[in-house]
Amino acid sequence: MVTLCSKTTPMEKNLAAKKIVDKMMAEDRFSQWLGIEVLLAEEGHCMLKMKIREEMVNGFGIAHGGIAFSFADSALAFASNAYGRLSVALECSISFAIAVNVHDELTCEATQLSLTNKTGTYHIEISNQKKEKVAFFKGTVYRTSKNW
Amino acid sequence: MVTLCSKTTPMEKNLAAKKIVDKMMAEDRFSQWLGIEVLLAEEGHCMLKMKIREEMVNGFGIAHGGIAFSFADSALAFASNAYGRLSVALECSISFAIAVNVHDELTCEATQLSLTNKTGTYHIEISNQKKEKVAFFKGTVYRTSKNW
Amino acid sequence: MVTLCSKTTPMEKNLAAKKIVDKMMAEDRFSQWLGIEVLLAEEGHCMLKMKIREEMVNGFGIAHGGIAFSFADSALAFASNAYGRLSVALECSISFAIAVNVHDELTCEATQLSLTNKTGTYHIEISNQKKEKVAFFKGTVYRTSKNW
Amino acid sequence: MVTLCSKTTPMEKNLAAKKIVDKMMAEDRFSQWLGIEVLLAEEGHCMLKMKIREEMVNGFGIAHGGIAFSFADSALAFASNAYGRLSVALECSISFAIAVNVHDELTCEATQLSLTNKTGTYHIEISNQKKEKVAFFKGTVYRTSKNW
Repeated sequence: MVTLCSKTTPMEKNLAAKKIVDKMMAEDRFSQWLGIEVLLAEEGHCMLKMKIREEMVNGFGIAHGGIAFSFADSALAFASNAYGRLSVALECSISFAIAVNVHDELTCEATQLSLTNKTGTYHIEISNQKKEKVAFFKGTVYRTSKNW
Repeated sequence: MVTLCSKTTPMEKNLAAKKIVDKMMAEDRFSQWLGIEVLLAEEGHCMLKMKIREEMVNGFGIAHGGIAFSFADSALAFASNAYGRLSVALECSISFAIAVNVHDELTCEATQLSLTNKTGTYHIEISNQKKEKVAFFKGTVYRTSKNW
Repeated sequence: MVTLCSKTTPMEKNLAAKKIVDKMMAEDRFSQWLGIEVLLAEEGHCMLKMKIREEMVNGFGIAHGGIAFSFADSALAFASNAYGRLSVALECSISFAIAVNVHDELTCEATQLSLTNKTGTYHIEISNQKKEKVAFFKGTVYRTSKNW
Repeated sequence: MVTLCSKTTPMEKNLAAKKIVDKMMAEDRFSQWLGIEVLLAEEGHCMLKMKIREEMVNGFGIAHGGIAFSFADSALAFASNAYGRLSVALECSISFAIAVNVHDELTCEATQLSLTNKTGTYHIEISNQKKEKVAFFKGTVYRTSKNW
Protein backbone atom coordinates (compact mmCIF):
# COMPACT_ATOMS: atom_id res chain seq x y z
CA MET A 1 0.00 0.00 0.00
CA VAL A 2 1.32 3.45 -0.91
CA THR A 3 0.84 6.22 1.61
CA LEU A 4 1.66 9.79 0.76
CA CYS A 5 1.38 11.11 4.29
CA SER A 6 4.28 11.07 6.72
CA LYS A 7 3.22 8.11 8.87
CA THR A 8 5.98 6.16 10.60
CA THR A 9 6.29 2.67 9.15
CA PRO A 10 6.82 -0.36 11.42
CA MET A 11 10.37 -0.65 10.17
CA GLU A 12 11.11 2.99 10.99
CA LYS A 13 9.60 2.48 14.46
CA ASN A 14 11.84 -0.50 15.09
CA LEU A 15 14.89 1.40 13.93
CA ALA A 16 14.01 4.30 16.24
CA ALA A 17 13.45 1.85 19.11
CA LYS A 18 16.76 0.14 18.48
CA LYS A 19 18.56 3.48 18.33
CA ILE A 20 17.17 4.54 21.71
CA VAL A 21 18.08 1.24 23.35
CA ASP A 22 21.58 1.33 21.85
CA LYS A 23 22.04 4.84 23.26
CA MET A 24 20.73 3.77 26.70
CA MET A 25 22.97 0.72 26.73
CA ALA A 26 26.03 2.79 25.70
CA GLU A 27 25.65 4.92 28.83
CA ASP A 28 24.32 2.25 31.18
CA ARG A 29 27.49 1.31 32.99
CA PHE A 30 25.81 -1.10 35.37
CA SER A 31 24.15 -3.08 32.56
CA GLN A 32 27.58 -3.19 30.95
CA TRP A 33 29.11 -4.54 34.18
CA LEU A 34 26.39 -7.18 34.23
CA GLY A 35 27.41 -8.14 30.69
CA ILE A 36 23.93 -7.63 29.27
CA GLU A 37 23.50 -8.14 25.54
CA VAL A 38 20.41 -6.87 23.75
CA LEU A 39 19.00 -9.66 21.54
CA LEU A 40 15.92 -7.71 20.44
CA ALA A 41 14.44 -4.33 21.25
CA GLU A 42 11.24 -2.87 19.93
CA GLU A 43 8.37 -0.75 21.27
CA GLY A 44 7.10 -2.43 24.45
CA HIS A 45 9.15 -5.56 23.98
CA CYS A 46 12.73 -6.74 24.38
CA MET A 47 14.91 -9.80 24.91
CA LEU A 48 18.25 -9.76 26.70
CA LYS A 49 20.93 -12.23 27.73
CA MET A 50 23.72 -12.30 30.30
CA LYS A 51 26.05 -14.77 32.01
CA ILE A 52 26.49 -15.19 35.76
CA ARG A 53 30.05 -14.54 36.97
CA GLU A 54 31.66 -15.39 40.29
CA GLU A 55 31.59 -11.78 41.46
CA MET A 56 27.77 -11.90 41.29
CA VAL A 57 27.22 -14.43 44.08
CA ASN A 58 25.76 -13.83 47.54
CA GLY A 59 26.58 -15.42 50.90
CA PHE A 60 24.98 -18.72 49.82
CA GLY A 61 27.30 -19.09 46.80
CA ILE A 62 24.43 -18.60 44.33
CA ALA A 63 23.60 -15.49 42.31
CA HIS A 64 22.53 -12.55 44.51
CA GLY A 65 18.81 -11.78 44.11
CA GLY A 66 19.75 -8.29 43.00
CA ILE A 67 21.38 -9.72 39.86
CA ALA A 68 18.17 -11.25 38.49
CA PHE A 69 16.25 -8.13 39.52
CA SER A 70 18.76 -5.83 37.78
CA PHE A 71 18.62 -7.92 34.62
CA ALA A 72 14.81 -7.63 34.49
CA ASP A 73 14.90 -3.95 35.45
CA SER A 74 17.12 -3.22 32.44
CA ALA A 75 14.63 -5.07 30.25
CA LEU A 76 11.82 -2.95 31.73
CA ALA A 77 13.73 0.24 30.94
CA PHE A 78 14.53 -0.79 27.37
CA ALA A 79 11.02 -2.04 26.48
CA SER A 80 9.26 1.00 27.92
CA ASN A 81 11.66 3.70 26.70
CA ALA A 82 11.72 2.25 23.17
CA TYR A 83 8.55 4.26 22.44
CA GLY A 84 10.66 7.42 22.61
CA ARG A 85 9.01 8.75 25.78
CA LEU A 86 11.35 8.90 28.78
CA SER A 87 9.86 6.39 31.23
CA VAL A 88 10.93 5.64 34.80
CA ALA A 89 10.15 2.64 37.03
CA LEU A 90 7.68 3.34 39.84
CA GLU A 91 7.14 -0.07 41.36
CA CYS A 92 8.56 -3.50 40.62
CA SER A 93 8.14 -6.93 42.15
CA ILE A 94 10.02 -10.16 41.62
CA SER A 95 9.28 -13.78 42.52
CA PHE A 96 12.27 -16.07 42.84
CA ALA A 97 11.47 -19.60 41.67
CA ILE A 98 14.77 -21.40 41.14
CA ALA A 99 18.30 -20.58 42.33
CA VAL A 100 20.64 -19.06 39.74
CA ASN A 101 24.16 -20.47 39.74
CA VAL A 102 27.58 -19.24 38.66
CA HIS A 103 28.10 -19.77 34.90
CA ASP A 104 24.34 -19.90 34.24
CA GLU A 105 23.37 -18.20 31.00
CA LEU A 106 20.22 -16.20 31.51
CA THR A 107 17.80 -14.79 28.98
CA CYS A 108 14.82 -12.60 29.71
CA GLU A 109 11.87 -11.35 27.75
CA ALA A 110 9.80 -8.26 28.58
CA THR A 111 6.16 -8.36 27.47
CA GLN A 112 3.86 -5.36 27.72
CA LEU A 113 0.75 -6.00 29.78
CA SER A 114 -0.79 -2.54 29.41
CA LEU A 115 0.01 0.95 28.16
CA THR A 116 -1.84 4.16 28.90
CA ASN A 117 -0.76 7.75 28.29
CA LYS A 118 0.86 7.97 31.72
CA THR A 119 1.86 4.43 32.69
CA GLY A 120 2.95 1.08 31.30
CA THR A 121 3.04 -2.33 32.97
CA TYR A 122 5.36 -5.15 31.93
CA HIS A 123 5.77 -8.84 32.75
CA ILE A 124 9.31 -10.18 32.50
CA GLU A 125 10.38 -13.81 32.71
CA ILE A 126 13.96 -14.89 33.27
CA SER A 127 15.12 -18.32 32.06
CA ASN A 128 18.35 -20.24 32.43
CA GLN A 129 20.21 -22.31 29.80
CA LYS A 130 18.05 -25.36 30.64
CA LYS A 131 14.93 -23.34 29.68
CA GLU A 132 13.85 -23.31 33.32
CA LYS A 133 12.05 -20.16 34.43
CA VAL A 134 14.09 -18.84 37.35
CA ALA A 135 12.27 -15.59 38.19
CA PHE A 136 9.14 -13.59 37.35
CA PHE A 137 9.08 -9.80 37.43
CA LYS A 138 6.22 -7.30 37.16
CA GLY A 139 7.04 -3.61 36.75
CA THR A 140 5.12 -0.39 36.25
CA VAL A 141 6.70 2.72 34.73
CA TYR A 142 5.61 6.37 34.72
CA ARG A 143 5.80 7.82 31.22
CA THR A 144 7.09 11.41 31.44
CA SER A 145 6.36 14.00 28.76
CA LYS A 146 10.07 14.20 27.80
CA ASN A 147 11.25 12.57 24.61
CA TRP A 148 14.53 10.80 23.90
CA MET B 1 17.18 -13.04 87.78
CA VAL B 2 19.47 -16.05 87.98
CA THR B 3 18.72 -18.94 85.63
CA LEU B 4 20.58 -22.18 85.94
CA CYS B 5 19.42 -23.62 82.65
CA SER B 6 21.24 -23.04 79.38
CA LYS B 7 19.02 -20.30 77.89
CA THR B 8 20.62 -18.04 75.32
CA THR B 9 21.02 -14.50 76.63
CA PRO B 10 20.24 -11.47 74.43
CA MET B 11 23.96 -10.71 74.22
CA GLU B 12 24.75 -14.26 73.07
CA LYS B 13 21.97 -14.01 70.48
CA ASN B 14 23.42 -10.79 69.12
CA LEU B 15 26.89 -12.29 68.95
CA ALA B 16 25.54 -15.32 67.10
CA ALA B 17 23.62 -13.02 64.72
CA LYS B 18 26.69 -10.90 64.05
CA LYS B 19 28.80 -14.01 63.42
CA ILE B 20 26.35 -15.31 60.81
CA VAL B 21 26.14 -11.96 59.03
CA ASP B 22 29.93 -11.58 59.06
CA LYS B 23 30.22 -15.04 57.51
CA MET B 24 27.58 -14.24 54.87
CA MET B 25 29.24 -10.92 54.05
CA ALA B 26 32.67 -12.58 53.76
CA GLU B 27 31.39 -14.83 50.97
CA ASP B 28 28.92 -12.39 49.38
CA ARG B 29 31.02 -11.10 46.52
CA PHE B 30 28.26 -8.97 45.04
CA SER B 31 27.59 -7.16 48.31
CA GLN B 32 31.34 -6.60 48.47
CA TRP B 33 31.31 -5.15 44.94
CA LEU B 34 28.49 -2.85 46.02
CA GLY B 35 30.67 -1.69 48.91
CA ILE B 36 28.11 -2.60 51.54
CA GLU B 37 29.10 -2.05 55.17
CA VAL B 38 27.13 -3.65 57.99
CA LEU B 39 26.35 -1.00 60.62
CA LEU B 40 24.21 -3.28 62.80
CA ALA B 41 22.95 -6.84 62.53
CA GLU B 42 20.70 -8.65 64.94
CA GLU B 43 17.82 -11.13 64.77
CA GLY B 44 15.22 -9.70 62.38
CA HIS B 45 16.90 -6.32 62.10
CA CYS B 46 19.86 -4.72 60.35
CA MET B 47 21.29 -1.44 59.11
CA LEU B 48 23.65 -1.11 56.17
CA LYS B 49 25.39 1.65 54.25
CA MET B 50 26.96 1.99 50.81
CA LYS B 51 28.11 4.69 48.38
CA ILE B 52 27.01 5.06 44.77
CA ARG B 53 29.87 4.84 42.27
CA GLU B 54 29.95 5.79 38.59
CA GLU B 55 29.89 2.18 37.46
CA MET B 56 26.44 1.82 39.09
CA VAL B 57 24.56 4.19 36.78
CA ASN B 58 21.95 3.34 34.16
CA GLY B 59 21.20 4.94 30.77
CA PHE B 60 19.78 8.05 32.47
CA GLY B 61 23.00 8.75 34.37
CA ILE B 62 21.41 7.98 37.74
CA ALA B 63 21.80 4.84 39.85
CA HIS B 64 20.33 1.74 38.17
CA GLY B 65 17.17 0.55 39.94
CA GLY B 66 18.89 -2.77 40.52
CA ILE B 67 21.42 -1.09 42.82
CA ALA B 68 18.84 0.07 45.37
CA PHE B 69 17.07 -3.29 45.08
CA SER B 70 20.30 -5.22 45.66
CA PHE B 71 21.15 -3.09 48.68
CA ALA B 72 17.75 -3.84 50.26
CA ASP B 73 17.91 -7.50 49.24
CA SER B 74 21.20 -7.88 51.14
CA ALA B 75 19.53 -6.29 54.18
CA LEU B 76 16.65 -8.77 53.83
CA ALA B 77 19.10 -11.69 53.75
CA PHE B 78 21.10 -10.47 56.76
CA ALA B 79 18.08 -9.64 58.96
CA SER B 80 16.28 -12.90 58.23
CA ASN B 81 19.27 -15.27 58.38
CA ALA B 82 20.51 -13.72 61.65
CA TYR B 83 18.15 -16.10 63.50
CA GLY B 84 20.40 -18.97 62.44
CA ARG B 85 17.83 -20.58 60.13
CA LEU B 86 18.82 -20.52 56.47
CA SER B 87 16.22 -18.25 54.84
CA VAL B 88 15.72 -17.46 51.15
CA ALA B 89 13.77 -14.65 49.47
CA LEU B 90 10.51 -15.72 47.83
CA GLU B 91 9.00 -12.44 46.69
CA CYS B 92 10.19 -8.84 46.92
CA SER B 93 8.78 -5.52 45.76
CA ILE B 94 10.32 -2.08 45.61
CA SER B 95 8.83 1.40 45.15
CA PHE B 96 11.17 4.03 43.77
CA ALA B 97 10.44 7.46 45.24
CA ILE B 98 13.46 9.67 44.50
CA ALA B 99 16.32 9.26 42.02
CA VAL B 100 19.64 8.10 43.46
CA ASN B 101 22.70 9.93 42.14
CA VAL B 102 26.39 9.15 41.78
CA HIS B 103 28.25 9.82 45.07
CA ASP B 104 25.05 9.51 47.13
CA GLU B 105 25.62 7.79 50.44
CA LEU B 106 22.80 5.40 51.14
CA THR B 107 21.75 3.76 54.37
CA CYS B 108 19.01 1.22 54.80
CA GLU B 109 17.22 -0.35 57.71
CA ALA B 110 15.38 -3.68 57.66
CA THR B 111 12.47 -4.00 60.10
CA GLN B 112 10.64 -7.25 60.68
CA LEU B 113 6.90 -7.05 60.01
CA SER B 114 6.07 -10.65 60.84
CA LEU B 115 7.72 -13.98 61.61
CA THR B 116 6.15 -17.43 61.55
CA ASN B 117 7.78 -20.84 61.62
CA LYS B 118 7.96 -20.95 57.80
CA THR B 119 8.09 -17.34 56.62
CA GLY B 120 9.20 -13.85 57.57
CA THR B 121 8.23 -10.49 56.08
CA TYR B 122 10.41 -7.38 56.22
CA HIS B 123 10.01 -3.68 55.40
CA ILE B 124 13.18 -1.93 54.29
CA GLU B 125 13.63 1.80 53.77
CA ILE B 126 16.56 3.29 51.90
CA SER B 127 17.66 6.87 52.66
CA ASN B 128 20.25 9.16 51.12
CA GLN B 129 22.71 11.49 52.86
CA LYS B 130 20.03 14.24 52.99
CA LYS B 131 17.81 11.89 55.04
CA GLU B 132 15.41 11.63 52.09
CA LYS B 133 13.70 8.27 51.69
CA VAL B 134 14.60 7.13 48.19
CA ALA B 135 13.02 3.67 48.02
CA PHE B 136 10.73 1.32 49.96
CA PHE B 137 11.11 -2.45 49.82
CA LYS B 138 8.91 -5.26 51.11
CA GLY B 139 10.26 -8.81 51.08
CA THR B 140 9.10 -12.23 52.20
CA VAL B 141 11.51 -15.09 52.94
CA TYR B 142 10.98 -18.83 53.27
CA ARG B 143 12.67 -20.18 56.38
CA THR B 144 14.22 -23.57 55.60
CA SER B 145 14.89 -26.16 58.28
CA LYS B 146 18.67 -25.89 57.73
CA ASN B 147 20.80 -24.05 60.25
CA TRP B 148 23.87 -21.89 59.71
CA MET C 1 2.42 -47.47 26.89
CA VAL C 2 0.70 -49.91 29.22
CA THR C 3 1.20 -49.38 32.93
CA LEU C 4 -0.01 -51.93 35.40
CA CYS C 5 0.56 -49.78 38.47
CA SER C 6 -2.06 -47.48 39.95
CA LYS C 7 -0.98 -44.16 38.45
CA THR C 8 -3.55 -41.38 38.37
CA THR C 9 -4.71 -40.62 34.83
CA PRO C 10 -5.08 -37.04 33.62
CA MET C 11 -8.87 -37.45 33.62
CA GLU C 12 -8.84 -38.64 37.24
CA LYS C 13 -6.62 -35.71 38.19
CA ASN C 14 -9.04 -33.25 36.61
CA LEU C 15 -12.00 -34.84 38.37
CA ALA C 16 -10.17 -34.62 41.69
CA ALA C 17 -9.27 -30.99 40.98
CA LYS C 18 -12.85 -30.13 40.07
CA LYS C 19 -14.15 -31.83 43.21
CA ILE C 20 -11.82 -29.79 45.44
CA VAL C 21 -12.74 -26.50 43.77
CA ASP C 22 -16.45 -27.32 43.96
CA LYS C 23 -16.05 -28.00 47.66
CA MET C 24 -14.09 -24.77 48.20
CA MET C 25 -16.64 -22.75 46.24
CA ALA C 26 -19.54 -24.32 48.20
CA GLU C 27 -18.10 -22.94 51.45
CA ASP C 28 -16.62 -19.72 50.09
CA ARG C 29 -19.35 -17.29 51.02
CA PHE C 30 -17.47 -14.23 49.79
CA SER C 31 -16.84 -15.70 46.33
CA GLN C 32 -20.55 -16.51 46.30
CA TRP C 33 -21.38 -12.89 47.18
CA LEU C 34 -19.14 -11.78 44.33
CA GLY C 35 -21.15 -14.05 42.02
CA ILE C 36 -18.09 -15.98 40.87
CA GLU C 37 -18.68 -18.87 38.45
CA VAL C 38 -15.99 -21.46 37.83
CA LEU C 39 -15.57 -21.96 34.08
CA LEU C 40 -12.64 -24.36 34.36
CA ALA C 41 -10.53 -25.73 37.20
CA GLU C 42 -7.60 -28.06 36.94
CA GLU C 43 -4.21 -28.49 38.64
CA GLY C 44 -2.44 -25.13 38.53
CA HIS C 45 -4.96 -23.52 36.22
CA CYS C 46 -8.46 -22.05 36.34
CA MET C 47 -10.84 -19.66 34.62
CA LEU C 48 -13.59 -17.73 36.40
CA LYS C 49 -16.23 -15.17 35.54
CA MET C 50 -18.27 -12.61 37.47
CA LYS C 51 -20.43 -9.53 36.86
CA ILE C 52 -19.94 -6.14 38.52
CA ARG C 53 -22.98 -5.00 40.55
CA GLU C 54 -23.79 -1.55 41.91
CA GLU C 55 -22.94 -2.58 45.47
CA MET C 56 -19.34 -3.19 44.34
CA VAL C 57 -18.47 0.44 43.51
CA ASN C 58 -16.12 2.76 45.37
CA GLY C 59 -16.29 6.53 45.96
CA PHE C 60 -15.49 7.20 42.28
CA GLY C 61 -18.51 5.23 41.03
CA ILE C 62 -16.31 2.52 39.49
CA ALA C 63 -15.58 -0.97 40.84
CA HIS C 64 -13.60 -0.88 44.10
CA GLY C 65 -10.04 -2.14 43.61
CA GLY C 66 -10.75 -4.83 46.16
CA ILE C 67 -13.28 -6.43 43.82
CA ALA C 68 -10.76 -7.18 41.06
CA PHE C 69 -8.23 -8.30 43.68
CA SER C 70 -10.74 -10.63 45.34
CA PHE C 71 -11.69 -12.14 41.99
CA ALA C 72 -8.03 -12.91 41.21
CA ASP C 73 -7.38 -14.11 44.76
CA SER C 74 -10.16 -16.70 44.41
CA ALA C 75 -8.57 -17.84 41.15
CA LEU C 76 -5.22 -18.16 42.95
CA ALA C 77 -6.81 -20.29 45.68
CA PHE C 78 -8.61 -22.56 43.22
CA ALA C 79 -5.65 -23.10 40.87
CA SER C 80 -3.18 -23.80 43.66
CA ASN C 81 -5.40 -25.97 45.87
CA ALA C 82 -6.53 -28.08 42.91
CA TYR C 83 -3.42 -30.24 43.42
CA GLY C 84 -4.95 -31.53 46.64
CA ARG C 85 -2.40 -29.85 48.93
CA LEU C 86 -3.87 -27.15 51.15
CA SER C 87 -2.20 -23.93 49.94
CA VAL C 88 -2.44 -20.42 51.36
CA ALA C 89 -1.54 -17.05 49.83
CA LEU C 90 1.63 -15.46 51.19
CA GLU C 91 2.08 -12.40 49.02
CA CYS C 92 0.04 -10.95 46.15
CA SER C 93 0.36 -7.88 43.97
CA ILE C 94 -2.02 -6.31 41.50
CA SER C 95 -1.58 -3.69 38.78
CA PHE C 96 -4.67 -1.77 37.78
CA ALA C 97 -4.67 -0.93 34.07
CA ILE C 98 -8.24 0.07 33.13
CA ALA C 99 -11.20 1.11 35.30
CA VAL C 100 -13.88 -1.55 35.84
CA ASN C 101 -17.46 -0.29 35.56
CA VAL C 102 -20.83 -1.40 36.89
CA HIS C 103 -22.34 -4.14 34.70
CA ASP C 104 -18.93 -5.13 33.31
CA GLU C 105 -18.57 -8.87 32.84
CA LEU C 106 -15.15 -9.98 33.97
CA THR C 107 -13.28 -13.18 33.26
CA CYS C 108 -9.93 -14.18 34.68
CA GLU C 109 -7.41 -16.88 34.03
CA ALA C 110 -4.80 -18.16 36.47
CA THR C 111 -1.61 -19.53 34.93
CA GLN C 112 1.08 -21.27 36.94
CA LEU C 113 4.50 -19.64 36.68
CA SER C 114 6.33 -22.02 38.97
CA LEU C 115 5.73 -24.86 41.41
CA THR C 116 8.12 -26.24 44.00
CA ASN C 117 7.45 -28.55 46.93
CA LYS C 118 6.80 -25.62 49.25
CA THR C 119 5.57 -22.76 47.06
CA GLY C 120 3.72 -21.93 43.85
CA THR C 121 3.58 -18.68 41.89
CA TYR C 122 0.72 -17.69 39.61
CA HIS C 123 0.01 -14.94 37.07
CA ILE C 124 -3.62 -13.94 36.73
CA GLU C 125 -5.08 -11.64 34.10
CA ILE C 126 -8.54 -10.10 34.38
CA SER C 127 -10.41 -9.07 31.21
CA ASN C 128 -13.69 -7.27 30.61
CA GLN C 129 -16.42 -8.06 28.05
CA LYS C 130 -14.55 -6.00 25.41
CA LYS C 131 -11.54 -8.33 25.83
CA GLU C 132 -9.57 -5.49 27.41
CA LYS C 133 -7.12 -6.53 30.13
CA VAL C 134 -8.16 -4.55 33.19
CA ALA C 135 -5.77 -5.87 35.85
CA PHE C 136 -2.71 -8.08 36.31
CA PHE C 137 -2.11 -10.10 39.46
CA LYS C 138 0.91 -12.07 40.68
CA GLY C 139 0.52 -14.30 43.73
CA THR C 140 2.68 -16.74 45.67
CA VAL C 141 1.22 -19.49 47.87
CA TYR C 142 2.74 -21.62 50.58
CA ARG C 143 1.89 -25.29 50.10
CA THR C 144 1.20 -26.87 53.49
CA SER C 145 1.59 -30.60 54.09
CA LYS C 146 -2.17 -31.00 54.71
CA ASN C 147 -4.34 -32.59 52.06
CA TRP C 148 -7.90 -31.78 51.05
CA MET D 1 0.17 33.81 65.26
CA VAL D 2 -1.84 36.15 63.02
CA THR D 3 -1.38 35.79 59.28
CA LEU D 4 -2.96 38.26 56.92
CA CYS D 5 -2.46 36.21 53.80
CA SER D 6 -4.92 33.53 52.70
CA LYS D 7 -2.88 30.46 53.65
CA THR D 8 -4.79 27.34 54.60
CA THR D 9 -4.39 26.55 58.28
CA PRO D 10 -3.78 22.97 59.47
CA MET D 11 -7.28 22.90 60.92
CA GLU D 12 -8.82 23.99 57.61
CA LYS D 13 -6.77 21.32 55.82
CA ASN D 14 -8.05 18.64 58.15
CA LEU D 15 -11.64 19.79 57.71
CA ALA D 16 -11.22 19.72 53.93
CA ALA D 17 -9.65 16.25 54.14
CA LYS D 18 -12.46 14.97 56.35
CA LYS D 19 -15.08 16.43 53.99
CA ILE D 20 -13.56 14.62 50.98
CA VAL D 21 -13.34 11.31 52.80
CA ASP D 22 -16.92 11.65 54.08
CA LYS D 23 -18.07 12.27 50.52
CA MET D 24 -16.08 9.29 49.20
CA MET D 25 -17.42 7.04 51.93
CA ALA D 26 -21.01 8.18 51.27
CA GLU D 27 -20.78 6.92 47.70
CA ASP D 28 -18.49 3.95 48.29
CA ARG D 29 -21.05 1.17 48.43
CA PHE D 30 -18.48 -1.61 48.76
CA SER D 31 -16.76 0.02 51.75
CA GLN D 32 -20.25 0.37 53.24
CA TRP D 33 -20.91 -3.35 52.64
CA LEU D 34 -17.61 -4.11 54.38
CA GLY D 35 -18.84 -2.03 57.34
CA ILE D 36 -15.83 0.27 57.28
CA GLU D 37 -15.79 3.11 59.80
CA VAL D 38 -13.40 6.03 59.41
CA LEU D 39 -11.63 6.68 62.72
CA LEU D 40 -9.35 9.41 61.41
CA ALA D 41 -8.69 10.95 57.99
CA GLU D 42 -6.19 13.63 57.16
CA GLU D 43 -3.81 14.43 54.30
CA GLY D 44 -1.73 11.31 53.63
CA HIS D 45 -2.94 9.47 56.71
CA CYS D 46 -6.01 7.58 57.90
CA MET D 47 -7.23 4.96 60.35
CA LEU D 48 -10.19 2.68 59.71
CA LYS D 49 -11.96 -0.17 61.45
CA MET D 50 -14.27 -3.01 60.40
CA LYS D 51 -15.62 -6.31 61.71
CA ILE D 52 -15.43 -9.66 59.92
CA ARG D 53 -18.83 -11.21 59.18
CA GLU D 54 -19.69 -14.76 58.16
CA GLU D 55 -20.40 -13.73 54.58
CA MET D 56 -16.75 -12.66 54.25
CA VAL D 57 -15.19 -16.12 54.57
CA ASN D 58 -13.46 -18.20 51.90
CA GLY D 59 -13.39 -21.96 51.33
CA PHE D 60 -11.15 -22.44 54.39
CA GLY D 61 -13.68 -20.83 56.75
CA ILE D 62 -11.40 -17.83 57.41
CA ALA D 63 -11.69 -14.31 55.97
CA HIS D 64 -11.13 -14.23 52.19
CA GLY D 65 -7.82 -12.53 51.29
CA GLY D 66 -9.78 -10.00 49.28
CA ILE D 67 -11.40 -8.69 52.46
CA ALA D 68 -8.13 -7.56 54.06
CA PHE D 69 -6.95 -6.21 50.70
CA SER D 70 -10.18 -4.24 50.20
CA PHE D 71 -9.95 -2.79 53.69
CA ALA D 72 -6.39 -1.55 53.01
CA ASP D 73 -7.31 -0.36 49.51
CA SER D 74 -10.04 1.87 50.98
CA ALA D 75 -7.46 3.28 53.40
CA LEU D 76 -5.12 3.97 50.46
CA ALA D 77 -7.89 5.81 48.62
CA PHE D 78 -8.86 7.91 51.63
CA ALA D 79 -5.31 8.86 52.67
CA SER D 80 -4.22 9.79 49.15
CA ASN D 81 -7.38 11.61 48.02
CA ALA D 82 -7.54 13.65 51.24
CA TYR D 83 -5.14 16.16 49.63
CA GLY D 84 -7.96 17.17 47.28
CA ARG D 85 -6.30 15.75 44.14
CA LEU D 86 -8.16 12.84 42.59
CA SER D 87 -5.75 9.88 42.99
CA VAL D 88 -6.08 6.34 41.68
CA ALA D 89 -4.26 3.15 42.66
CA LEU D 90 -1.70 1.91 40.14
CA GLU D 91 -0.08 -1.00 41.92
CA CYS D 92 -0.66 -2.62 45.30
CA SER D 93 0.85 -5.57 47.11
CA ILE D 94 -0.18 -7.37 50.26
CA SER D 95 1.59 -9.85 52.55
CA PHE D 96 -0.63 -12.11 54.61
CA ALA D 97 0.91 -12.85 58.01
CA ILE D 98 -1.87 -14.25 60.22
CA ALA D 99 -5.29 -15.69 59.34
CA VAL D 100 -8.28 -13.40 59.93
CA ASN D 101 -11.28 -15.08 61.54
CA VAL D 102 -15.02 -14.44 61.65
CA HIS D 103 -15.89 -11.85 64.32
CA ASP D 104 -12.36 -10.41 64.31
CA GLU D 105 -12.31 -6.65 64.70
CA LEU D 106 -9.75 -5.16 62.37
CA THR D 107 -8.15 -1.73 62.38
CA CYS D 108 -5.76 -0.37 59.80
CA GLU D 109 -3.53 2.64 59.51
CA ALA D 110 -2.24 4.17 56.28
CA THR D 111 1.11 5.96 56.52
CA GLN D 112 2.58 7.95 53.66
CA LEU D 113 6.01 6.77 52.55
CA SER D 114 6.52 9.32 49.77
CA LEU D 115 4.67 11.99 47.82
CA THR D 116 5.69 13.61 44.56
CA ASN D 117 3.66 15.73 42.18
CA LYS D 118 2.51 12.68 40.22
CA THR D 119 2.60 9.75 42.64
CA GLY D 120 2.25 8.78 46.27
CA THR D 121 3.28 5.58 48.07
CA TYR D 122 1.66 4.30 51.25
CA HIS D 123 2.33 1.55 53.79
CA ILE D 124 -0.74 0.12 55.48
CA GLU D 125 -0.78 -2.28 58.41
CA ILE D 126 -3.87 -4.24 59.44
CA SER D 127 -4.23 -5.41 63.06
CA ASN D 128 -6.78 -7.57 64.83
CA GLN D 129 -8.41 -7.05 68.26
CA LYS D 130 -5.42 -8.82 69.92
CA LYS D 131 -3.09 -6.15 68.44
CA GLU D 132 -1.55 -8.78 66.16
CA LYS D 133 -0.49 -7.50 62.74
CA VAL D 134 -2.39 -9.68 60.26
CA ALA D 135 -1.38 -8.13 56.92
CA PHE D 136 0.97 -5.57 55.37
CA PHE D 137 0.05 -3.57 52.28
CA LYS D 138 2.10 -1.26 50.05
CA GLY D 139 0.29 0.83 47.44
CA THR D 140 1.23 3.47 44.88
CA VAL D 141 -1.29 5.95 43.48
CA TYR D 142 -1.21 8.19 40.42
CA ARG D 143 -2.25 11.73 41.30
CA THR D 144 -4.38 13.14 38.47
CA SER D 145 -4.72 16.87 37.87
CA LYS D 146 -8.44 16.79 38.74
CA ASN D 147 -9.60 18.16 42.08
CA TRP D 148 -12.39 16.93 44.34
